Amino acid sequence: MNSQLPVLAVTAGDPAGIGPEITVMTVTDPAMRAKARAVVYGDPAVLERAAAISGLQPTIHPLQDPRQAGGDPGVVDVIDIGQVPQASQIAFGQVQAQAGRAAVVAIERAVADALAGRVDGVVTSPINKEAIWASGSSFLGHTELIQDLTRAQATDTMFVVGNLCVFFATRHMSLAQAVAAIKADLIEACLHRALTALRVFGYPEPRLAVAALNPHGGEGGHFGREEIDQIAPAIGRVNATLPPGQPAVAGPIPADSVFHLGLQGQFDGILSLYHDQGHIATKTYDFDATVSVTTGLPILRTSVDHGTAFDIAGTGKASPATMNSAFLAGARFTACNERIRQQYGRTQP
Amino acid sequence: MNSQLPVLAVTAGDPAGIGPEITVMTVTDPAMRAKARAVVYGDPAVLERAAAISGLQPTIHPLQDPRQAGGDPGVVDVIDIGQVPQASQIAFGQVQAQAGRAAVVAIERAVADALAGRVDGVVTSPINKEAIWASGSSFLGHTELIQDLTRAQATDTMFVVGNLCVFFATRHMSLAQAVAAIKADLIEACLHRALTALRVFGYPEPRLAVAALNPHGGEGGHFGREEIDQIAPAIGRVNATLPPGQPAVAGPIPADSVFHLGLQGQFDGILSLYHDQGHIATKTYDFDATVSVTTGLPILRTSVDHGTAFDIAGTGKASPATMNSAFLAGARFTACNERIRQQYGRTQP
Repeated sequence: MNSQLPVLAVTAGDPAGIGPEITVMTVTDPAMRAKARAVVYGDPAVLERAAAISGLQPTIHPLQDPRQAGGDPGVVDVIDIGQVPQASQIAFGQVQAQAGRAAVVAIERAVADALAGRVDGVVTSPINKEAIWASGSSFLGHTELIQDLTRAQATDTMFVVGNLCVFFATRHMSLAQAVAAIKADLIEACLHRALTALRVFGYPEPRLAVAALNPHGGEGGHFGREEIDQIAPAIGRVNATLPPGQPAVAGPIPADSVFHLGLQGQFDGILSLYHDQGHIATKTYDFDATVSVTTGLPILRTSVDHGTAFDIAGTGKASPATMNSAFLAGARFTACNERIRQQYGRTQP
Repeated sequence: MNSQLPVLAVTAGDPAGIGPEITVMTVTDPAMRAKARAVVYGDPAVLERAAAISGLQPTIHPLQDPRQAGGDPGVVDVIDIGQVPQASQIAFGQVQAQAGRAAVVAIERAVADALAGRVDGVVTSPINKEAIWASGSSFLGHTELIQDLTRAQATDTMFVVGNLCVFFATRHMSLAQAVAAIKADLIEACLHRALTALRVFGYPEPRLAVAALNPHGGEGGHFGREEIDQIAPAIGRVNATLPPGQPAVAGPIPADSVFHLGLQGQFDGILSLYHDQGHIATKTYDFDATVSVTTGLPILRTSVDHGTAFDIAGTGKASPATMNSAFLAGARFTACNERIRQQYGRTQP
């Protein structure tokens, strides 16, 4: 046991999905455990079943306090959430209220321990929205639940792939609505939040770029005027506020170059203007390495960005690759916890 | 000399840009010459200068007939286009009529030889539109010129990265216009053309998928209705026409998955609905390996998809990586020449 390593709370997700399987695979991987201790928030019976499906035989070890977490990859330390005493109570691949309840309780317990400083971050497995609604929860989704539990005022999703962070000006709306939403005020506000997030997450002099909306960046207005009328003015306004010595925000840069340049190390962050712009770039580049980080919370939270995969749950086909990436990103960003609390904690301005 | 290898005509592009440099680097690369013989269409003096800039000392060898092309990477076989007797006549990085004329003549000569069967395909270096206009040409661009020279009725751009081909339903228009253009009739016509192109280019039973327009594929209409109202009906109509045993066109599939799945080998082709969708996917995945192929021509034509890079021309900083990919794609697709002529030749139905 290496008590110098940070402790990550890993929620097992919806027990009818692949969450418990990928959780067990990730926390028993020596490469993961070299970076952080792990405590799984879930039901021991569910984790026993998941381990068997994954061909693993770890010792499932219930803990009272996550700070007791050990470093042995052969041991799965568990905070027993007490929702599913027998794994057979949960069928794979179905929306079930009991499963949704287990998913929610795991999150509640993990977030409470993170807020209390008993763990250094939370790594979340996928949940099913319909299942959490069936259990009586009214939250729109995972992030909304965590935002409420932490009383955070606002959150953003930041994708991380390698050293590159990707932010989103718009997300869950049609592409037509996203295009209509690209206004200077929105871009300006997003850029300020992205710069703050980059500083918090370890980039003291953030090199941020904005992807263009239109092909070839609009080609001087021939293929759309948003770059000229909205995006460039917003960048100019933000750059006028930067402290001396800070790199200017770059862009708008054609979207088929900017992510490539960022991944080559030219930028630390890129503001994507619509959901698929940043999603296509990161997931086509490296599907398994793309991790979601929620900024704006007073705690560190990383997550896989895939679903419960009800179609393959229980079959042993699930891959822990993205969960591994989320775990490693969690371990990396524990170094930012002091800044996370200072910037996003409610008692701070 | 291996006279079994196909012969590729490589146009040197605008002599004020990086075209001559990347051309010389590519055709003197033994890995390229193992796949095809090369004949450069350009001015010997310009190629001598480019070789010196690139730190190479090949023998520049003018040919009368491209069929005499040898296989020695130490020799650059050239069809002398007679436009720039002295390299000093062309300054780097500037729009010049003489340079534009040289770019056009190289294309004219290479295309004529391809039409006559004296070369097996044309690989094109970048040209500058303003320079070709300054030289008196009125064509909008490279492809329009080649389309006219070959009297092709219609052409499409197909991106190739590895074994995956990417097609485009819309290209050079604003994103707002592209969204408005996504109608069932357009998608249906694009799918038929894409299926034809895949068969011509070596996929006899093409596995084609359509990228969705909206995030999460519209999520059942919550984030846009184009998938339901336009795209799915078009796919259905196309699938109703497929011969028995041919794979059905798949989709619409969320755009942040479909390119990943295609690159993993699940599809041979993907229809991208707007310019940046397919551009972001391919260029972020592997900028240097993304090659443009023009379908609809009665000859094989591959191309780099970058510009003349006037800012670094003459400095020795140009990378031949994309040109190498275009050359290798050209060599690979010479095996399709009989089908290309049959499908797209004017004397055929």
